[in-house]
Amino acid sequence: MDKEYDKEVRAAVGKQIKALRLEKGLSQEEFAFQVGIDRTYVSFIERGVRSPRIPVIYRIAYVLGVSPGELLVEINKTPD
Amino acid sequence: MDKEYDKEVRAAVGKQIKALRLEKGLSQEEFAFQVGIDRTYVSFIERGVRSPRIPVIYRIAYVLGVSPGELLVEINKTPD
Repeated sequence: MDKEYDKEVRAAVGKQIKALRLEKGLSQEEFAFQVGIDRTYVSFIERGVRSPRIPVIYRIAYVLGVSPGELLVEINKTPD
Repeated sequence: MDKEYDKEVRAAVGKQIKALRLEKGLSQEEFAFQVGIDRTYVSFIERGVRSPRIPVIYRIAYVLGVSPGELLVEINKTPD
């Protein structure tokens, strides 16, 4: 049962990752290759359909040149 | 194939979660109940055996009263 809160979290993190990827001028292909994940997975993540495990978040942060924490943007919603 | 980097990430995040939980004076039982996860899962997370999905990281941060990003401590290692 996919909770509303979880969807909002995935959407917010996906949006942040996409924004930072575009800021770096990386295509989904290049980004996926550098992180070591599949391009379709990048698309799922950015659309908030999937949320990666923490180690993948760290790899994404490394490729984007930001701290891992910077990918976990705050959302003003309480867990349901 | 569990990479060294992934192990270090899980260990660092687990250690951070445990430290913040103890700081708040919560037992694993109380903490698990408040987050809505199983106590044994808390133990796996804190020992770096498992790493939670992002929505669970947000719920953990909410219970600990910190921002989600604060749980993803930096590690000085490059992804292998």
